[in-house]
Amino acid sequence: MTDHSNIQYFTEQSSVEAVNARVGDKTDGRLTDVIHSLVKHLHAFIKDVELTQDEWAAAIEFLTRTGQICDDSRQEFILLSDVLGVSMLVDAINNRRPTGATENTVLGPFHVNGAPEYPMGASIALQGARETCVFEGAVRDLDGAPIEGARIDVWCDSEDGFYDVQQPDVQPKHNNRGVFTTGADGRYQFRGIKPVSYPIPDDGPVGQLLYRLERHPNRPAHMHFIISAEGYDTVVTHIFVDGDPYLESDAVFGVKESLIVAFEPVTDGDTKWRSAFDFVLHKKTQ
Amino acid sequence: MTDHSNIQYFTEQSSVEAVNARVGDKTDGRLTDVIHSLVKHLHAFIKDVELTQDEWAAAIEFLTRTGQICDDSRQEFILLSDVLGVSMLVDAINNRRPTGATENTVLGPFHVNGAPEYPMGASIALQGARETCVFEGAVRDLDGAPIEGARIDVWCDSEDGFYDVQQPDVQPKHNNRGVFTTGADGRYQFRGIKPVSYPIPDDGPVGQLLYRLERHPNRPAHMHFIISAEGYDTVVTHIFVDGDPYLESDAVFGVKESLIVAFEPVTDGDTKWRSAFDFVLHKKTQ
Repeated sequence: MTDHSNIQYFTEQSSVEAVNARVGDKTDGRLTDVIHSLVKHLHAFIKDVELTQDEWAAAIEFLTRTGQICDDSRQEFILLSDVLGVSMLVDAINNRRPTGATENTVLGPFHVNGAPEYPMGASIALQGARETCVFEGAVRDLDGAPIEGARIDVWCDSEDGFYDVQQPDVQPKHNNRGVFTTGADGRYQFRGIKPVSYPIPDDGPVGQLLYRLERHPNRPAHMHFIISAEGYDTVVTHIFVDGDPYLESDAVFGVKESLIVAFEPVTDGDTKWRSAFDFVLHKKTQ
Repeated sequence: MTDHSNIQYFTEQSSVEAVNARVGDKTDGRLTDVIHSLVKHLHAFIKDVELTQDEWAAAIEFLTRTGQICDDSRQEFILLSDVLGVSMLVDAINNRRPTGATENTVLGPFHVNGAPEYPMGASIALQGARETCVFEGAVRDLDGAPIEGARIDVWCDSEDGFYDVQQPDVQPKHNNRGVFTTGADGRYQFRGIKPVSYPIPDDGPVGQLLYRLERHPNRPAHMHFIISAEGYDTVVTHIFVDGDPYLESDAVFGVKESLIVAFEPVTDGDTKWRSAFDFVLHKKTQ
């Protein structure tokens, strides 16, 4: 027999060190750190629950199905990340801001680049609007000064609970989406609909997991916003409709108290609702 | 505004509790424990490395590609589990045995049910055998007594480094596989080839990860065994060929010191090598 004293054997006790020792010296430092930590926490999970062979096989099968249901318009791994709170956690870690600055929440999978640019006051609801709503407010800095030239990219679902990109055959395109740019007063105003709550896709592995955990797939009604202005941190967020029954159980954990907004009934021509919200941007720290 | 005091908001600090509080009271207890632990360790990993949005997106894309390359004869998530030491860890946790009992190692993806049953002394190498080898030894209990009726299921790669199931068009079927059953003396003997080292499939996402980590995809040469006998724990294991250059860097961490076996050159008719190994089974604890 040859000398085996140089072999670092894998054991239950040494599992993390045995795997992590294999990463090469010239491997990118950040990748090394991420893999070292991943292996440490992944092995800790398996040891913690003493995962059985059958459970391991079920996990392999779950992950495989999750990958295989993905296509150009369906991203089941993002859904999995969402329902496990991973998407919100990554968002939180990467968007820490001082008190008073508008908080981030998840981007979600339904943003589209190249939505139409509209003048202030225009409507993004191109069809099917019953619960018409005016959205208004201002974009300011932390000192309260208006921000000129802020780009306001907004989108929401239709009154049927679907984003336009989920119904590619329905015309017109870009229903309930638009981009507005603030003037010197920093103010914005546009028309649309009062958003409605809707389920995330629940006919795949992630939906099956949610139901086994006695969770529902619904998100409380919200309007998406991306607010960007030169020299300021971009805010990716929603405003949530106060009173929605799913505010306390958003399937993707996106709700923050500062983002819940009263939608007030109004009587103003065709407009039935009004929502007022000011966005406060934080100067970029370089 | 309505009262929101009942909402448990998701924050960086409360992320684990916010997610785990959603699991229903009537959810299966084991599933609850596994998910609670998974969320705890997954969030700890993300906080530990402060995962960036770009890294998160790269992870989503990696997992999606890993799922999408899977098919009836390719299981990339098992490869991922293998190269991260997860498969070996699950195997170790579920197969703790007293000192002296033969240790387990990973099953691997190439086992086949229904391999031919042969009489002792037969050859499993149906074609292409150059480095012919005799495998022999006994199946015993921890007291050294022979075990009659032990079923010995063996398989290995060809001298080209492929298992028969990886080359479905190559005849004859079941090359380098067979099942033997011990008699009253507990002994076994069969002929085959001295196995060769080979790479796990490295043309997918897992192979790309290995190369980025400066790791190679090779496994040291080994013969697979499943030894089962009524009343004893089934042993799923390999014997590894002593002197193989990959013993210290098995891509899937399967090597255990007790499983490294000398392959001795012999001159016995057509047979060029001899490998002797006794399997020691542990009585089932009920």
